[in-house]
Amino acid sequence: MESITAAPARRTSIGAQRNPDSEEAILAAAEAILIEEGFSAFSIEAVARRAKAGKPTIYRWWPSKAALLLDVYHRQKQDMSVADSGDVRKDLALFVKGLLSFWQDNGGAVFRSVIAEAQSDPATLEALRNYLLQRWQQTGDIIKRGQERGEIKPGIHPELLIEILSGFAWSRLLTGRLDCSNAEIDAAVDAVVSGIAAR
Amino acid sequence: MESITAAPARRTSIGAQRNPDSEEAILAAAEAILIEEGFSAFSIEAVARRAKAGKPTIYRWWPSKAALLLDVYHRQKQDMSVADSGDVRKDLALFVKGLLSFWQDNGGAVFRSVIAEAQSDPATLEALRNYLLQRWQQTGDIIKRGQERGEIKPGIHPELLIEILSGFAWSRLLTGRLDCSNAEIDAAVDAVVSGIAAR
Repeated sequence: MESITAAPARRTSIGAQRNPDSEEAILAAAEAILIEEGFSAFSIEAVARRAKAGKPTIYRWWPSKAALLLDVYHRQKQDMSVADSGDVRKDLALFVKGLLSFWQDNGGAVFRSVIAEAQSDPATLEALRNYLLQRWQQTGDIIKRGQERGEIKPGIHPELLIEILSGFAWSRLLTGRLDCSNAEIDAAVDAVVSGIAAR
Repeated sequence: MESITAAPARRTSIGAQRNPDSEEAILAAAEAILIEEGFSAFSIEAVARRAKAGKPTIYRWWPSKAALLLDVYHRQKQDMSVADSGDVRKDLALFVKGLLSFWQDNGGAVFRSVIAEAQSDPATLEALRNYLLQRWQQTGDIIKRGQERGEIKPGIHPELLIEILSGFAWSRLLTGRLDCSNAEIDAAVDAVVSGIAAR
């Protein structure tokens, strides 16, 4: 244990500055535990052991398990960008396909853990909610660009639409049905874009 | 503890027959724990204590925590029926509104626990999936009736559509945003029924 100084540690102190190598080692260790052993084996202690880092270091950078979990997820997801093909239907289908295939390649194990943890831990719930509201706003650009091109009705709320499609993906993730065919995803996107009404 | 007999208990033995009063007391105790104390306090031991029942009795009727959880949820939900107003848009909006308001009145605490537990326990995941596939088939009747009346395109897959709208409701539940206005729900249903494409 590090000694506790009279003044609380501040983000601006040298001790609180993240060392990129250690940060990467901790995030990689956390990810490996979640993927290989599952959420029940995930603890700050286990991450510290695997990353050969001190528990106080981890706690200094990530105040809660939830914060660390979300950073692991965010790090995995950083390569995912919002498609901009000029066709809203194509962009929305790529969004759903990208999400489901990312979750099939390990990302799903981490995100399922975050959602599960959020159901009993208010701090995780708040972190998850803030993360999503921000993501949906970014992804909502697909709808906004469609509206600017006159493809999408002006009254449609971008975030609402993204939450509907992302909710479908969540349902697949959380019921263990990620092996969704491209035809099924296209059918879901078509239903929402073209509507289901006969006239 | 009850004495353990040489032969394993069978469903057909007198011991395995559920006594309706005890069954109701156990389900009520399980529900009360989930609502009052949350999922972290939920165990067969705690349910047995509160229901003044033997643990072996509970295990005989519900082979897993998951089975008991789903029965609690099912019991809460038994009053919910699928609307049949003759108007598919109205029926779908009532479906989503019914789900969200049921979850706001206690049902949400139980269902969140089931979903969370399913993310680390394969038996719960399978029980949840089977339960949902059956529910979505029932609720899909809204779409089927709409197709028979010529309101809905014949190519639309009833369960797919229900999963899209139910996924939106899940997203609200699992991010703690159940206080959804009727206008927002109507907007979500309208987007799916009429589509979002401008032409």
